[in-house]
Amino acid sequence: MSFSPDVHAKRIDGVRRRAADSGLDGVVVGPGADLAYLVGVEGDTIERLTALVVTPGGPVTMVVPRMERARIRGTAAEQLPLRVVDWVDGEDPYALLADALSGRPSRIAVSDGMPALHTVPLGQTLGVRVELATPVLREGRMIKDAAEIAELRKAGAAIDAVHRHVPKLLRAGRTEREVAADIASAILAEGHRSAEFVIVASGPNGADPHHEVSDRVIRDGDLVVVDIGGAVPAGYNSDSTRTYVIGRAEPDVQRKVDVLVRAQRAAVDAVRPGASAGHVDAAAREVLAEAGLDEAFLHRTGHGIGLSVHEEPYISPGNPVELRAGMTFSIEPGIYFPGEWGARIEDIVVVTDDGCEALNLTPHGLISCPARGSL
Amino acid sequence: MSFSPDVHAKRIDGVRRRAADSGLDGVVVGPGADLAYLVGVEGDTIERLTALVVTPGGPVTMVVPRMERARIRGTAAEQLPLRVVDWVDGEDPYALLADALSGRPSRIAVSDGMPALHTVPLGQTLGVRVELATPVLREGRMIKDAAEIAELRKAGAAIDAVHRHVPKLLRAGRTEREVAADIASAILAEGHRSAEFVIVASGPNGADPHHEVSDRVIRDGDLVVVDIGGAVPAGYNSDSTRTYVIGRAEPDVQRKVDVLVRAQRAAVDAVRPGASAGHVDAAAREVLAEAGLDEAFLHRTGHGIGLSVHEEPYISPGNPVELRAGMTFSIEPGIYFPGEWGARIEDIVVVTDDGCEALNLTPHGLISCPARGSL
Repeated sequence: MSFSPDVHAKRIDGVRRRAADSGLDGVVVGPGADLAYLVGVEGDTIERLTALVVTPGGPVTMVVPRMERARIRGTAAEQLPLRVVDWVDGEDPYALLADALSGRPSRIAVSDGMPALHTVPLGQTLGVRVELATPVLREGRMIKDAAEIAELRKAGAAIDAVHRHVPKLLRAGRTEREVAADIASAILAEGHRSAEFVIVASGPNGADPHHEVSDRVIRDGDLVVVDIGGAVPAGYNSDSTRTYVIGRAEPDVQRKVDVLVRAQRAAVDAVRPGASAGHVDAAAREVLAEAGLDEAFLHRTGHGIGLSVHEEPYISPGNPVELRAGMTFSIEPGIYFPGEWGARIEDIVVVTDDGCEALNLTPHGLISCPARGSL
Repeated sequence: MSFSPDVHAKRIDGVRRRAADSGLDGVVVGPGADLAYLVGVEGDTIERLTALVVTPGGPVTMVVPRMERARIRGTAAEQLPLRVVDWVDGEDPYALLADALSGRPSRIAVSDGMPALHTVPLGQTLGVRVELATPVLREGRMIKDAAEIAELRKAGAAIDAVHRHVPKLLRAGRTEREVAADIASAILAEGHRSAEFVIVASGPNGADPHHEVSDRVIRDGDLVVVDIGGAVPAGYNSDSTRTYVIGRAEPDVQRKVDVLVRAQRAAVDAVRPGASAGHVDAAAREVLAEAGLDEAFLHRTGHGIGLSVHEEPYISPGNPVELRAGMTFSIEPGIYFPGEWGARIEDIVVVTDDGCEALNLTPHGLISCPARGSL
């Protein structure tokens, strides 16, 4: 999961510098993507505290349960200039954090994802009201370096390979669950370390953007939304949606999906450094609105992706965040007709110096799978 | 995911009563298992706030992003006497929480899992230092009712069915990843809605209790630890570990695994209402110690399970928590020999009035899979 110690050392230096600029006495990073980003280790359990403490001037300390100390071996965390302090059940890990912060810190920030289980006792131990480290951590996470982009490209190719199997798996008479089981298997077989999500939404289920999987039997003529992803061994995620049809779609359905394909394309074309996230969202919405389909688009156009499946920047209406080279996010407009059908098309893109690179390269239009009659 | 509205109404009443007893002005429950327990809906995204507000005297309010409001339809949350307040991007959901708490609340508790992303701005908006709602929420979550136990039994039967497939999937020449892909597929096919984790740890990888899966090729004579689980549609989790051997184990290995089987059995036998969690942990450790194997047992004996894979009570050394009928947890001692091999055996048990019921019923000893030579 970790890159070279140099890469991680540079990331930690960035946090230290931004913490100093913000007047913070320390930053406490809990388990999850932020920790993986900084030291190459995600941290294991929720209930036992693992945390990295970065102070503007002083040392970097990692507090870790002793039984999880072995997890650090062979990762960047082992080779970085940081002090590892372990603890066992019965000891107070928050006192260890307070030691690592030293002096009488008054402004302490914690990572977004730190659960209240740890945030609350940390605040109590220090006698301060903790702040969010978002401004200090977001900057580094949002702009991917070349090694991160290479991992996301790998993840994109792996999920594309899974989508290429889908027409062989989807057919009338099978349940969504049976198809999802085969897809989960293919996600791992194609090189992911985990199948993070498998959405197979057929017929009317496709009209619910949150549907996951059910025992519904797929029928001739169904549209099927397949939204899938997983993490490659380095921890970076894939996420790609294609919409399939069993046999042939009715002309009106086909026409609407064609508009969706154009909307997705328009949003991709709108991506360039300096454009706002909201501008990209609007590009998709405009194409749908021209065809009277904007009311059928129920969610934002996309979300950042990296060590988390959902992270900044969010490609949502009016979001003023300025796109910069190295940002990676999904472009996934959808149209939903309750009780009838839905469709969604999703690629991950990387902002380049003059536009973007799409990491998902399978065909974007409705993909036809054999109907029962044609077998 | 939800039970009848009556069940959920009773659970919310319990929280309200315990909040009043604790002198709290309100309890704010964020997305996750606590929310699913109370209203039958887990809450969807991390970055947009969904929360339930319970006040000792007043109304119950659910704050939810408008685009996720549809998720409530058909769940208990829709039928419960609670007010749903939705919000859209650009609005301040913490102000809505403050409204729901009404008056000038001074003692507010939040659920364990609420991320700092929401806990910090909530505290800032209210001008209070929030507390943990653990004492108020834990009680209900720990003691499962009949409907919950029925779901956990279903989950146990589903993961047992998967373990029964494993001897057909495990053989020399396949990689851990190939086997894990087939198992992930079987977890879904056997009735889970998600494959939460698939650990296939062969040969020396079995000596790392945290190993997940790798491209290592399985060989004749390997021990293989298979630790798997998923959630059934109602959200309750399965979790069962068995240790397999490709061909036959060497006599010394077989002898040690036999001790492990006895240790696991001893811990299961030690479960009864009134015993402490630590007593159960000690029962497993004693059997291992008699055979000189206690140093090879690196972790706690078990963890509670339900809507979360890991929850209270933890079956760890010295934990004084008193077991009560309706508690459900894993019993999973393991032995680990770095660089060589490892073994772990795990069942979920439910505390009954006079002992416990095991929810996993496949054989506990080393399970033999055909060696290459014998095919």
